Amino acid sequence: MKKLNIVIAGGGSTYTPGITSAILSHIERFPMAEIRLYDNDSKRNEDMGLIINQLLIEQNQTDIELITTENPEEAFSGADFIFSQIRVGGLKMREQDEKIPLKYGLVGQETCGLGGFAYGLRSIKGILELVGYIQEYAPDAWVLNYTNPETLVGEAIRRVYPGIRMINVCDMTISIEETIAENYDYDRKNWVPTYFGLNHYGWYTEIYDKSLGRDVMPEIIEKMRAKSMNVAEFNEGDQTWAEAFKMMSTMVEYFPDYLPNNYLEYYLFPDVVVEKSDPSYTRANMVMEGREKNTREMARKIRDGETENVLNFNFGEHGNYIVDIATSLLNDEHRRFMVITPNRGSIPNLRQDAVVEVPAYIGATGIEPIALDPIIDFHKGLMEAQVAAEKLLVDAYFEGSYQKALQAFTLNQSVNSAYLAKQVLDEMIEANKGYWPELN
Amino acid sequence: MKKLNIVIAGGGSTYTPGITSAILSHIERFPMAEIRLYDNDSKRNEDMGLIINQLLIEQNQTDIELITTENPEEAFSGADFIFSQIRVGGLKMREQDEKIPLKYGLVGQETCGLGGFAYGLRSIKGILELVGYIQEYAPDAWVLNYTNPETLVGEAIRRVYPGIRMINVCDMTISIEETIAENYDYDRKNWVPTYFGLNHYGWYTEIYDKSLGRDVMPEIIEKMRAKSMNVAEFNEGDQTWAEAFKMMSTMVEYFPDYLPNNYLEYYLFPDVVVEKSDPSYTRANMVMEGREKNTREMARKIRDGETENVLNFNFGEHGNYIVDIATSLLNDEHRRFMVITPNRGSIPNLRQDAVVEVPAYIGATGIEPIALDPIIDFHKGLMEAQVAAEKLLVDAYFEGSYQKALQAFTLNQSVNSAYLAKQVLDEMIEANKGYWPELN
Repeated sequence: MKKLNIVIAGGGSTYTPGITSAILSHIERFPMAEIRLYDNDSKRNEDMGLIINQLLIEQNQTDIELITTENPEEAFSGADFIFSQIRVGGLKMREQDEKIPLKYGLVGQETCGLGGFAYGLRSIKGILELVGYIQEYAPDAWVLNYTNPETLVGEAIRRVYPGIRMINVCDMTISIEETIAENYDYDRKNWVPTYFGLNHYGWYTEIYDKSLGRDVMPEIIEKMRAKSMNVAEFNEGDQTWAEAFKMMSTMVEYFPDYLPNNYLEYYLFPDVVVEKSDPSYTRANMVMEGREKNTREMARKIRDGETENVLNFNFGEHGNYIVDIATSLLNDEHRRFMVITPNRGSIPNLRQDAVVEVPAYIGATGIEPIALDPIIDFHKGLMEAQVAAEKLLVDAYFEGSYQKALQAFTLNQSVNSAYLAKQVLDEMIEANKGYWPELN
Repeated sequence: MKKLNIVIAGGGSTYTPGITSAILSHIERFPMAEIRLYDNDSKRNEDMGLIINQLLIEQNQTDIELITTENPEEAFSGADFIFSQIRVGGLKMREQDEKIPLKYGLVGQETCGLGGFAYGLRSIKGILELVGYIQEYAPDAWVLNYTNPETLVGEAIRRVYPGIRMINVCDMTISIEETIAENYDYDRKNWVPTYFGLNHYGWYTEIYDKSLGRDVMPEIIEKMRAKSMNVAEFNEGDQTWAEAFKMMSTMVEYFPDYLPNNYLEYYLFPDVVVEKSDPSYTRANMVMEGREKNTREMARKIRDGETENVLNFNFGEHGNYIVDIATSLLNDEHRRFMVITPNRGSIPNLRQDAVVEVPAYIGATGIEPIALDPIIDFHKGLMEAQVAAEKLLVDAYFEGSYQKALQAFTLNQSVNSAYLAKQVLDEMIEANKGYWPELN
């Protein structure tokens, strides 16, 4: 099997050790010759280089070459496989995305609501630049993209590069499934889940358990109504996630048809979420003071020769999921994952040009999404409005249209006031100078 | 030409003199032998009988027979043409529709938002009963229905009586066009307007002026942005309408693509509307103390022999519009009106099973809606969500489903909180006992 040159774009991310660790534990199915960390923030990238180097030492994998670079030509030339996880504007801009809407009593969140739309306009610019480099220097490489907000990013990419060898995935469904399985004593490995939605805006319609021989979703909903979930082990002590998973019980109490993605709380209960939010201290602050700071500290210790055991770090399931997908593709395994993809007929009664999240099989030719049953009116209504909002936002990006951005912000289902949408938009335009296209 | 037996269902309504007056002024094209006022409120119906009798005297039309009745067999047997304008629960229940949502900071309005949904559940019950009588006693009669909220009523009727000889219309577009023409010096008679939407939730895409030979919508939007409208003559002194038409300027300022129905303010600027609302004195109170009281007083004067000149009453354009449609049907005139109808392909990129408001030609065979251009994403998103909400509400009616009612209330685009939607729903269930089906 050919040895692979791997790039992690957004290499300075705190998710990089998890991805690398997952690759190393699947090394026989994912033979890596070289790992290249590519980032436009050299400080973060250098720090991560120290950590990954330490990881390779701990794993006795020092024959794998490690490169850190801010030069796209160096990063992508001869690359076989690219993991893309960029965050344009970093956590400082995430903080703005969260805090500006909260000022106006609206949901302030990273990927959902108007914060997600602000992030989207930044991400599109960054991802199109990145994909441009990949098309130039490694046109035959496969890209596994999990840059948020994913349906916006997916919509933009396919307009410019419709034929690109890219798979868009999100690990949130895995995280939800892990948490459910741990709380209610199931083994997720036995599950065949069916799910539809936009990114961070979807529902399970079935969770078939192979070992039990039945759909366990109805009983999970009953259990969730009776007793709300604790966070799973890998998120332990994280109050944000604890609240989010608790809210799932309220959601299935109100709407017991399907099992929602926890992120739906931002669209169905925005007032409840805002009520619990602290406009001066948001998730971005927590991440900066937690995961981000810990990572910097780990790099410092390695740099200063204080031994730091990277393997003891709890990476969660994210990396394993991503690498599972990569190996299914590389080895033509035809395994089943949730992917983000143009709808076509996968959700038959939703507009075909939507970008959706649905189950797909992944093999050497890429993804093959499953054709699902029609969805019911409640979810169709919610999705059609949000899809239209996302389309308008991507239009706003490409056309530089203030008008379409305002329509997108107004139609975003976490908002129902054009008056507030306009105020948030106007303040965000100021805050995102240099990151957003100019809107006229 | 055959002389016609006419029924006005909901005969006690204050709109009855306008309809009757309009019929009388088109009597050569709409030859009326008998007018029957049918209502389940005998007091209101008797009062209206006095007024209509006076109107016939003033117009020298005493050879037209006048009947007031609460008996459906008497009302509909041998009827040729039925005008339907019932208001189930009357203005007292309208007051509840308006005041309950306002308690929770949500839009409180007659036909829009959750008030409209509450009214809808009452209206469906009433209209289906009415249509049942018509099917029994006058199956060949034509029904011209303008019972609100019209798309909900239309959706329910077509599920039970898909082949019924009924035309659903709303006069709001005429009222808007009159007001625009009067404010900006046009003659509405020269206009060929193109409009799409749900009822009280739509947009003009073009207003072609035959005498000027061009689409005047863009210039009207510019004029409206520069100077907001006053109410038209027939609404003079009415503060609610004055505010509504003023708000149209804000709407075209924010969204200048199309010219909106003024009712869109309840969905695009619900917070601004709520801010201006008085939760203890709503439109229902104004109507009860104004139009309703004046009508009672007029009946009293006639009863007491104090002469009252009905002809001096300002009826507005409503009656003329309704009778215009009736004559176009009766005389196979193929004139063009806005109608409420199952979409099929009229709006090509909206679900075919939606009930929409679009232009149609009306002749002896009924309506022939026009196939329009695809709509743009902003309006598609808004409409798909609201259509789904309306479908869910009608499902809730027929299935007695609390769950679907909650989904409908949550998805209603004047709301974005399942938490508040549920509280309003629960309070409305209590307030509408006997009017709504039981929801479990």
